[in-house]
Amino acid sequence: MAQSQQPYQHTHHEAGSYHTIDAVISPQNQLNILSKTEVAKLLDASQSGLYKLFRSCALAVLNCGNSLDDGKELLERYPDFAIRIIQEERGIKLDVKGAPASAFVDGQMIRGISEHLFAVLRDVIFASGEKRLTAGLDTLSPETTTDVVFHMLRNADIIRPKIDPNIVVCWGGHSISMGEYDYTKKVGYQMGLRGLDICTGCGPGAMKGPMKGATIGHAKQRLGVRRYIGITEPGIIAAEAPNPIVNELAIMPDIEKRLEAFVRAGHGIVVFPGGAGTAEEILYLLGILLHPDNAELPFPLVFTGPASAADYFRQIDQFIGVTLGAEAQKRYQIIMDDPEAVALAMTKGIAEVRAFRKRTDDAYYFNWQLKVSPDFQQPFAPTHENMRNLVINHELPRHHLAANLRRAFSGIVAGNVKDEGIRAIERDGLFEICGEPSIMQPVDELLSAFRDQGRMKLPGSRYTPCYRIIH
Amino acid sequence: MAQSQQPYQHTHHEAGSYHTIDAVISPQNQLNILSKTEVAKLLDASQSGLYKLFRSCALAVLNCGNSLDDGKELLERYPDFAIRIIQEERGIKLDVKGAPASAFVDGQMIRGISEHLFAVLRDVIFASGEKRLTAGLDTLSPETTTDVVFHMLRNADIIRPKIDPNIVVCWGGHSISMGEYDYTKKVGYQMGLRGLDICTGCGPGAMKGPMKGATIGHAKQRLGVRRYIGITEPGIIAAEAPNPIVNELAIMPDIEKRLEAFVRAGHGIVVFPGGAGTAEEILYLLGILLHPDNAELPFPLVFTGPASAADYFRQIDQFIGVTLGAEAQKRYQIIMDDPEAVALAMTKGIAEVRAFRKRTDDAYYFNWQLKVSPDFQQPFAPTHENMRNLVINHELPRHHLAANLRRAFSGIVAGNVKDEGIRAIERDGLFEICGEPSIMQPVDELLSAFRDQGRMKLPGSRYTPCYRIIH
Amino acid sequence: MAQSQQPYQHTHHEAGSYHTIDAVISPQNQLNILSKTEVAKLLDASQSGLYKLFRSCALAVLNCGNSLDDGKELLERYPDFAIRIIQEERGIKLDVKGAPASAFVDGQMIRGISEHLFAVLRDVIFASGEKRLTAGLDTLSPETTTDVVFHMLRNADIIRPKIDPNIVVCWGGHSISMGEYDYTKKVGYQMGLRGLDICTGCGPGAMKGPMKGATIGHAKQRLGVRRYIGITEPGIIAAEAPNPIVNELAIMPDIEKRLEAFVRAGHGIVVFPGGAGTAEEILYLLGILLHPDNAELPFPLVFTGPASAADYFRQIDQFIGVTLGAEAQKRYQIIMDDPEAVALAMTKGIAEVRAFRKRTDDAYYFNWQLKVSPDFQQPFAPTHENMRNLVINHELPRHHLAANLRRAFSGIVAGNVKDEGIRAIERDGLFEICGEPSIMQPVDELLSAFRDQGRMKLPGSRYTPCYRIIH
Amino acid sequence: MAQSQQPYQHTHHEAGSYHTIDAVISPQNQLNILSKTEVAKLLDASQSGLYKLFRSCALAVLNCGNSLDDGKELLERYPDFAIRIIQEERGIKLDVKGAPASAFVDGQMIRGISEHLFAVLRDVIFASGEKRLTAGLDTLSPETTTDVVFHMLRNADIIRPKIDPNIVVCWGGHSISMGEYDYTKKVGYQMGLRGLDICTGCGPGAMKGPMKGATIGHAKQRLGVRRYIGITEPGIIAAEAPNPIVNELAIMPDIEKRLEAFVRAGHGIVVFPGGAGTAEEILYLLGILLHPDNAELPFPLVFTGPASAADYFRQIDQFIGVTLGAEAQKRYQIIMDDPEAVALAMTKGIAEVRAFRKRTDDAYYFNWQLKVSPDFQQPFAPTHENMRNLVINHELPRHHLAANLRRAFSGIVAGNVKDEGIRAIERDGLFEICGEPSIMQPVDELLSAFRDQGRMKLPGSRYTPCYRIIH
Repeated sequence: MAQSQQPYQHTHHEAGSYHTIDAVISPQNQLNILSKTEVAKLLDASQSGLYKLFRSCALAVLNCGNSLDDGKELLERYPDFAIRIIQEERGIKLDVKGAPASAFVDGQMIRGISEHLFAVLRDVIFASGEKRLTAGLDTLSPETTTDVVFHMLRNADIIRPKIDPNIVVCWGGHSISMGEYDYTKKVGYQMGLRGLDICTGCGPGAMKGPMKGATIGHAKQRLGVRRYIGITEPGIIAAEAPNPIVNELAIMPDIEKRLEAFVRAGHGIVVFPGGAGTAEEILYLLGILLHPDNAELPFPLVFTGPASAADYFRQIDQFIGVTLGAEAQKRYQIIMDDPEAVALAMTKGIAEVRAFRKRTDDAYYFNWQLKVSPDFQQPFAPTHENMRNLVINHELPRHHLAANLRRAFSGIVAGNVKDEGIRAIERDGLFEICGEPSIMQPVDELLSAFRDQGRMKLPGSRYTPCYRIIH
Repeated sequence: MAQSQQPYQHTHHEAGSYHTIDAVISPQNQLNILSKTEVAKLLDASQSGLYKLFRSCALAVLNCGNSLDDGKELLERYPDFAIRIIQEERGIKLDVKGAPASAFVDGQMIRGISEHLFAVLRDVIFASGEKRLTAGLDTLSPETTTDVVFHMLRNADIIRPKIDPNIVVCWGGHSISMGEYDYTKKVGYQMGLRGLDICTGCGPGAMKGPMKGATIGHAKQRLGVRRYIGITEPGIIAAEAPNPIVNELAIMPDIEKRLEAFVRAGHGIVVFPGGAGTAEEILYLLGILLHPDNAELPFPLVFTGPASAADYFRQIDQFIGVTLGAEAQKRYQIIMDDPEAVALAMTKGIAEVRAFRKRTDDAYYFNWQLKVSPDFQQPFAPTHENMRNLVINHELPRHHLAANLRRAFSGIVAGNVKDEGIRAIERDGLFEICGEPSIMQPVDELLSAFRDQGRMKLPGSRYTPCYRIIH
Repeated sequence: MAQSQQPYQHTHHEAGSYHTIDAVISPQNQLNILSKTEVAKLLDASQSGLYKLFRSCALAVLNCGNSLDDGKELLERYPDFAIRIIQEERGIKLDVKGAPASAFVDGQMIRGISEHLFAVLRDVIFASGEKRLTAGLDTLSPETTTDVVFHMLRNADIIRPKIDPNIVVCWGGHSISMGEYDYTKKVGYQMGLRGLDICTGCGPGAMKGPMKGATIGHAKQRLGVRRYIGITEPGIIAAEAPNPIVNELAIMPDIEKRLEAFVRAGHGIVVFPGGAGTAEEILYLLGILLHPDNAELPFPLVFTGPASAADYFRQIDQFIGVTLGAEAQKRYQIIMDDPEAVALAMTKGIAEVRAFRKRTDDAYYFNWQLKVSPDFQQPFAPTHENMRNLVINHELPRHHLAANLRRAFSGIVAGNVKDEGIRAIERDGLFEICGEPSIMQPVDELLSAFRDQGRMKLPGSRYTPCYRIIH
Repeated sequence: MAQSQQPYQHTHHEAGSYHTIDAVISPQNQLNILSKTEVAKLLDASQSGLYKLFRSCALAVLNCGNSLDDGKELLERYPDFAIRIIQEERGIKLDVKGAPASAFVDGQMIRGISEHLFAVLRDVIFASGEKRLTAGLDTLSPETTTDVVFHMLRNADIIRPKIDPNIVVCWGGHSISMGEYDYTKKVGYQMGLRGLDICTGCGPGAMKGPMKGATIGHAKQRLGVRRYIGITEPGIIAAEAPNPIVNELAIMPDIEKRLEAFVRAGHGIVVFPGGAGTAEEILYLLGILLHPDNAELPFPLVFTGPASAADYFRQIDQFIGVTLGAEAQKRYQIIMDDPEAVALAMTKGIAEVRAFRKRTDDAYYFNWQLKVSPDFQQPFAPTHENMRNLVINHELPRHHLAANLRRAFSGIVAGNVKDEGIRAIERDGLFEICGEPSIMQPVDELLSAFRDQGRMKLPGSRYTPCYRIIH
């Protein structure tokens, strides 16, 4: 194994009870040549705030395999962690102090993790030099937002010309049962055998299983290029640190741009079982696909899991049928307990994507034609006021309804589960939603079912709505 | 996925109840340019017998994943199977008729399997042109035998200069429990993380698990070259067909040359649980290592398994202690239930191999210095006469004792388990062995234990010796 | 020869008397994935002016091998020339109409030229997105100017980490004698044999000879990476179009950044015979090297030519001795008629550069430590006023004197040779320079000598100063 | 420049007046892994004679650029030259003592030359293990001879599948005028621009010029694979040592197999001016092409040179017309002073070869269908007896006449020019040839013309026949 790491100063030392290691890391590829100004930005800790961001993302990457629920705990665990750029004659290196020992094998950093460190560096630097980002995100037009997503992905070398469409995005929970996890591996294996590459949100569970499976499938097919793309953002990287199998990593500026990156860079999506978060992602995607401008756009979408997850998808399907209607149900297939059928559905769906892009001269590597309205590009904060302003009824166009439903859903989950949300309800009373009962009740039923299946941890013994309907 | 396979004539058809496919396959690399004479050899079915050998090995390769106990059954299952070389303007192709459908994904042959087909072609052709082989194996001197092993491996591109020693040979059973199988994957993963490559006998179980694990470890370390070497021979390829992960395959002329290939091309050996076959391999290896000429030669050897396999290795260790003594026990370590420790032991042991070869100017890629005496190069047929001629006692030098023990062991297993052996005993009575009871009894105990652990299928309910001791 | 060009519409047609061809060209590498915004910029001919720049540089590149003295004539020769970006499913292509037929072989564009077209596209787009450039060059601080040079070169993939210093910049005339041209090939060959790469200003003559020679030297040494770097700018690309051997091309925004790119990316400089332009480049370089901050900085510099060019360099040497003194003369060696000695001097000098950068942790790929004062970063327009304000005397620090001498030199050449300069003199009288005669007279003598050697075309039969000295 | 050579013991020392260097050389690629037996063969100087052959070929390769007329002089010049195989842990190396200093640049062997050394090693070893060769060449059937040629070329990696036909063999003199040499470069350049690869007999002059030209053409076209194939044999390697540009070198066992390698591996032939040797090669080729079995086989053949060589080809054409007739003249084109037309003729002719091979399923990489009769596979010794047995008249089939003419021609040249031949004539009188005067007289005229053009050195002032015609 060719080694580019320097002879280590193996100063293993104890920080709290967590084992740490110091190391100096060299990049493997040529992406990281920094100008004096760029290096200065990261050294100037006080001023730009960039160092803080870089440090926390770097630590998350190094802590992979030991997921925590939040980044704060992680930073407290490794208080002495520091990372510094060194300029040397052959290029830059990273000097890492107090890093989690789990990132190392026999004192050498796992190559995949060291690549991730340099990916973090690359994206943090690039975003800081992108004037449209630093000028304030709120002011971005939809076209500009999409352009920024494109530039981030292009700079991360995730957008590549001359490759036939073959990227399958896999969504699903990061803490799923072992049976469900094994199933994601089998689906990944069947997709890998068919030359499909995998893109996920980077964490464990349904984010990792398909990549592991595809690794074996790709090996059997002797594929020279094997892409395991991870797309994350600073807010969740600590909870869902990229698995070292990920060999193309992008850190997007925020959650909405991360979601847009999935739908524009991927050629099809497979949804595995998850919890409320997965349901939100489904609403995000259906909301986009239901936009009239996207009516003709092929976009293969499969919900799948082992037999044991049949209830989960049945309930989601019913919920979609009742709220968004049959038109929405047409945009996906549900395939239970049949990894090969899932892979075939993706192969077939992506062939249609390919034909469509070819016919319309749209790039294989970026779905420019997909209409993503501002509704889905802008963050939603679940305050009482924002919740009250939501309109939820069958008179809305389907894609608006999907957008608002996603927001309501997000707010209700916050009100039931998240510290901040629960306290807001305690302080200011129930959320008031201007929602049709025929839509809001299925929301309750769905969350109740998630609770019963152990897919959502609720404080009480059962699910109780944290809102009331107003008119 | 770049395709080099021709548009298929998907003449799926039924042969008996087994699904088959016809295809034309192109090689991926440049190894397969044949002369007119070489092509003619394989077309001339009647005369050279080469076609028969090629066809049966090719079918075994195509049947991977559906192991059978013998090649005869396999040939009967696919009576219409045919394989033919086509000479075209860009090189040769293989025209395959009636091949097992399991070798294909969506009508395209799995690339790994198609590589194996061309490896079979290469080795069959090469061996047929190697005059020292065709002149008759019996007449080969030890040096010539080793030279033939070298030439076969070099032609198969398995011998490579300029690479630091890193090949770990894994031995063990091909039908082991799921817990043992998972353990072999974990060991493979830890070795892969350390840049070690894997070489096995090609089949399922302990032959496949370490490769799967290493695939994930290698991927995390971004290793450019990842070697999964399979070494087999015509007699066992049907029972232990190469898994498509194997990306370097050699078909050696016979079982003894296969074993010699392992010990000369590998830099260390890990033995997982198996049955009587695994025990025989251990005796083979210890017999070689006990040769006085090999006394100073470093050769890392680890026996390992999950906690559940502790008994197995304890019994083997006791058996070796009693029969071959403490000197033999010094040549291996037993590490239970600790994949990382196994990987570290290999890393450390191979570093010693490297230092030794460097010091003595011996090649990293071939263990020229290892003394393999003719005892271990020549086949042993377990006839009554051959068994009677065996001498088994403590007066023999240890390495001779090991050689004879291995033969006795092999004969006894045949007499208990194999059709031919059982019938020979029925016909001609018990084998007569000139063996010390203090050695022969532990043999019985070991086989008895294997039986109790379900590692050896016996016709009766318990193990009964099929020999008697003579003086 | 792998072809990525589309089946051509070979609409050869006549435009004036120049043969032209239409073609659609695909990029060979991955540098060219454009966003919708970027494509739009180049389509929007009227507004951004970018299209005009792109078209004229593209035409210059296509016209290589038929150098003209100015771009205006070129544009008139090919009035119908048009170039357009096409977005297709696999990436962008260039649709070229009315291109000079000399860029094609049998109707296929020479691959090297098609690469240059995409390099032009890349640099034009990149510069247009670089806000510091578009904000107005005059306002740039020295550090920012250098940073822009770095960013342009990095984006052009000319800055590469992990490579030992080996770039020799070759300067000299583009219309030299055949004997001098052959000599540049021999020097290039000796440098190529020693693994040195070549960087020039892109045109014919001394810009092309060393590359041709190095190509043969590199081939004999089987070098995998062979760099022939061309650095140009829009103002001179028409006169000195990049030879197709150039395999790394950068179009810098202006002449000063081009010069800075040479001295920061190169590790040593060889100056071949040329005319007044070459003398100016020598003054530029000596002015920088004489800066006190650069006193310790190693920078190998060799003046060389065949025996026939001995006079040329003797005169330049004398001129430097008289005007800038012995200190300046120490910064270069003159080696006549000995290609191997030149290559050895470069090898030795670059070894010192390497040691110095290593010691000071400066990048091998960019000479950050070289001090380039604003004098050398800002353009000089030779107006009467600017000439009058020049101060030229021995009281100035050497590096200031060199800067002003370079400007005076540039103005005097313009006043003698260039249309605009001659007319300015006719209209407004002689330039007035506040210069010491002991410095100005050698300037006259040098220009006079160039005239006599046929290295400078003057309108009259002999050189007459176009200035008078004031006090 | 990546270095694989060991730190040198630069024991430059004087041997006679020739400067020499000692070095230890490592191979760059994986071709050279030798078995113990193979190494032993080359060490055992006394017995196998292999070492002597290896040493003389190795010295010839090292002496490239300083061609001598014979190998004997070369061996005398470097009496201390020795070459030895070293077995080390990473593979074999070559220890070279007393090697010509011209093979080195700054004490490092030119990489191309070191590759040639290992090619010599490879071919010498391979031929020594090829039992059909060692069993005695005379006994080989035509098919076996062709098979041996194939095996030698395959082992030298010159035969490659999956490449479209593009190999142009260039023949011509190795001591031609500078104008003719420059012309060969221009033809090579035009062929290189069109993606054609070059194969020659390895020496200077017309063997080297096309390769140099093609190097520049290939560079402009950015071709990844650029083949400069040299095919030689032990008897002429000293006189025509491979130029280091040659990047694929094969040392065939003898001159006839070398010629057969040209016509089977090449896809077309360009003949530049030469002397009597070139005329013999033309007769060889026409003799083969006139065989009735080859009547339909496309084989592009162009005679070309600068205007100054017009006489040479006019005379050859006349000679062929008079002796072999119009049918023979149809097999070639003569193109004077037009490099582009030559390249176009080759491109067009090779396209026909490609179509023919595709249609007939013959390999692109080896011209199996070409009939080469034993006449052309067996050596001809020009003794008085052999000359007397030649039959030369118009009653013979054309291809037999060509074969005999070639032999007569060869004998007459020997009788006029070569030491041994002249002495044989002095001793035993004129050769007696059973030849028609209408054929023999043109032979005289042709040789006379060569003499007048300075293309053949004769001892006397004019050409005099060394034979008389008998009946």
